[in-house]
Amino acid sequence: MKYIIQIIFLIQSIQLSIAQEKKHVYNISKIYDVALTNGKSYEWLDYLSNQIGGRLSGSLNADRAVKWGFKELNNLDLDKVFLEDVMVPKWVRGTFEYASIITGPGMSINVPICSLGGSIATPASGLRAQVIEVKSFEELEVLGMKNIKGKFVFFNRPMPAGIIDTFEAYSVTRDQRSNGAERAAKYGAVGVIIRSMNLKLDDYPHTGNMSYGKLPNKMRIPAAAISTNGAELLSSMLSLNKNLYFYLKQDCKNLPDVKSYNVIGEIKGSDFPNEIIVVGGHLDSWDLGDGAHDDGAGIVQSMEVLNIFNKISYKPKRTIRVVLYMNEENGLRGGITYAKNAKNKKENHVFALESDAGGFSPRGFSFEASDNQFKKIKSWETYFHPYLTDRFTLGGSGADIGPLRNGKIVLAGLRPDSQRYFEYHHTANDTFEAINKRELELGAAAMTSMIYLVDQHGL
Amino acid sequence: MKYIIQIIFLIQSIQLSIAQEKKHVYNISKIYDVALTNGKSYEWLDYLSNQIGGRLSGSLNADRAVKWGFKELNNLDLDKVFLEDVMVPKWVRGTFEYASIITGPGMSINVPICSLGGSIATPASGLRAQVIEVKSFEELEVLGMKNIKGKFVFFNRPMPAGIIDTFEAYSVTRDQRSNGAERAAKYGAVGVIIRSMNLKLDDYPHTGNMSYGKLPNKMRIPAAAISTNGAELLSSMLSLNKNLYFYLKQDCKNLPDVKSYNVIGEIKGSDFPNEIIVVGGHLDSWDLGDGAHDDGAGIVQSMEVLNIFNKISYKPKRTIRVVLYMNEENGLRGGITYAKNAKNKKENHVFALESDAGGFSPRGFSFEASDNQFKKIKSWETYFHPYLTDRFTLGGSGADIGPLRNGKIVLAGLRPDSQRYFEYHHTANDTFEAINKRELELGAAAMTSMIYLVDQHGL
Repeated sequence: MKYIIQIIFLIQSIQLSIAQEKKHVYNISKIYDVALTNGKSYEWLDYLSNQIGGRLSGSLNADRAVKWGFKELNNLDLDKVFLEDVMVPKWVRGTFEYASIITGPGMSINVPICSLGGSIATPASGLRAQVIEVKSFEELEVLGMKNIKGKFVFFNRPMPAGIIDTFEAYSVTRDQRSNGAERAAKYGAVGVIIRSMNLKLDDYPHTGNMSYGKLPNKMRIPAAAISTNGAELLSSMLSLNKNLYFYLKQDCKNLPDVKSYNVIGEIKGSDFPNEIIVVGGHLDSWDLGDGAHDDGAGIVQSMEVLNIFNKISYKPKRTIRVVLYMNEENGLRGGITYAKNAKNKKENHVFALESDAGGFSPRGFSFEASDNQFKKIKSWETYFHPYLTDRFTLGGSGADIGPLRNGKIVLAGLRPDSQRYFEYHHTANDTFEAINKRELELGAAAMTSMIYLVDQHGL
Repeated sequence: MKYIIQIIFLIQSIQLSIAQEKKHVYNISKIYDVALTNGKSYEWLDYLSNQIGGRLSGSLNADRAVKWGFKELNNLDLDKVFLEDVMVPKWVRGTFEYASIITGPGMSINVPICSLGGSIATPASGLRAQVIEVKSFEELEVLGMKNIKGKFVFFNRPMPAGIIDTFEAYSVTRDQRSNGAERAAKYGAVGVIIRSMNLKLDDYPHTGNMSYGKLPNKMRIPAAAISTNGAELLSSMLSLNKNLYFYLKQDCKNLPDVKSYNVIGEIKGSDFPNEIIVVGGHLDSWDLGDGAHDDGAGIVQSMEVLNIFNKISYKPKRTIRVVLYMNEENGLRGGITYAKNAKNKKENHVFALESDAGGFSPRGFSFEASDNQFKKIKSWETYFHPYLTDRFTLGGSGADIGPLRNGKIVLAGLRPDSQRYFEYHHTANDTFEAINKRELELGAAAMTSMIYLVDQHGL
């Protein structure tokens, strides 16, 4: 009798689990269907990119983006939509940036450059100096002040093409951009020119954040990025004439912090309202393009999660919160502020998912999780197999959600195909035209499906 | 003693297998490194696309492509490079194609159309008739001759956006293009207008092959494709006015077959020279764009396989043959001829791999193979995992290699990400600019690695 009861119990639990699996397969197919045939992400991104455009923290366009996000979330019929105050740094590009290689008396060739975010201006008349080319910080040490003082340092280490994941290639080259000025200034350089973080040879300079670290104001030097073609040209000219001069003029500047906002919307959970699941991206972008891939895509995909839940009439058990973070690009103040406030309010965040790797064809997700948590998540891969988004790995997640890290919450990042990303990253051609509608939508559907499963099962 | 010998034997075989696995991992990493940092595929494709361009069978450009392929294969220092005679159909687009929706007396709106490959011309003065819109062949039956006779049939079934694999979406809509004219003519239609096979709404009409089947010459009617935007416009106007007229004028024609060639190069196998492994794509393309994705990409990736083998000094055990097939698009004569000659020569083909799904980020391979063969191949997936190209499935392979099918040979197709393909397929924007260098190269590297493993292990 005891065995019979056990067997009946076992059969019931298998039946339940089969029924549940069927339900998930069905709901996920509905999610994809809405995303691909009746979604809003592409239309939203069109507006954000083309009607608002680049939206650097502290700019008028960032304010317009906040207003737009607040309005659109309100249109979604959520339980709550609110703004969270965030003080953000304000750096402005100014009205001109200009550079040339001086090949001889009265002769020069213009090269495409852009100021790096956070950089100071050159003197109003510009900077004219010789150039020393290096590939690494170690070379600075070897060259020493005697070879560097009074010159531009030209950091020309390319992103390695042999690395499959372009984000990895980025991570082994971006120290030039982030810390190049600080390092070179210590050897008396007058400015730095950084090869753009781009695997393609083209004419677009790529901006991005840089820092002077603890360098005193009077030691700070201007920093600009040069396009990859420009870098190749400069390098080749230097190999012919080590004594050529470079001219740089830019009038960017750092202003006092200003007030801005994270934009937040939520659906209250029916069963576990105190367990919060966050999905988000960053609303700010660099100013050269319209920030369609970085990170307009992540913004509209995150909004789409709630939109799809509404369209398929899904009532989440847990509280689902979309956060449009402000100031990822040059300060991360939105992410830091959100996490600080969440901690102060003793909110219980169980899962956070960020999309900030471009609106390309999704390949999977990367997780920061314990072994047990990851084992559970890994068991869901099979749901994503028909959608070609079933590569689940342990690894990084997203910058904005990083401050939520507390040893318990699971953090995750959508991982799209990375091959094209660095052609657009931080540059004038990160525009809506570079977005493929279906690729964007598949990312939104994958994110919605992941949030759905976490909501169903907890972590 | 017996046990000890067995154990030693076991240990040795494990050691061998570990050593072999290490060797494969190493060689595949070299293959990827050459493809991404020192390959020729992108440069070749630049030439084929921009210096030669669209190369429809029987055209001067197809001849130029044959000469180019022959020359480039000869530059690769192979054991043998030769041309194989193929008689190909010759269809020419003519000097004009033009269509408009006639909205009222003296009023009309031009719409983007193109003749379908194989179609006949309209009368020199064009065709002016009313339009009946349908979504399927079944509707023709229901409407019958009384509603169709004397009119254009407008086939307007869109590719379904909800299907993840766009090739599947293509396969459920392309009967309109292939057989629409034959079907509609039987009900007395004067011409057919086909919605372009494109998931995106844009202004590019997509050409492609069509057939009149066994329809007698006097019953044949002109067939043209209309852009997706044009189809939406026409449909919306028809919903307002069922009696509007459409005007079509085109002067394409079918000419007698002409002589052309498959271009073939091979490296003789060192151990099993009679086991032939084929890698290929098709050299012909439609005439509207420059055929960069369809199938310039497959051509240069296939050539790259032999180039990489040379660069890493790999001497294959089996004979590796690259075949640049002629006439996939409108006849498949190259593929048919190659297989027929191979059979006549009693050649033993063990494996054939085709790349003809665009030069996009590779996701895996699809195989026509027996269970045992597939099991063996499936065990290699792990080598492709670090390169994100490890989705091995049973399914189709490629049109050109299809005629080699004999129940023993394994046929395979490279499977790139399919999301963007049908924005470019058979249209004026299938150009070199739509190719991403790294995506193309990753495809070539995956193909080379697959051919390498088949060569090492046989099938």
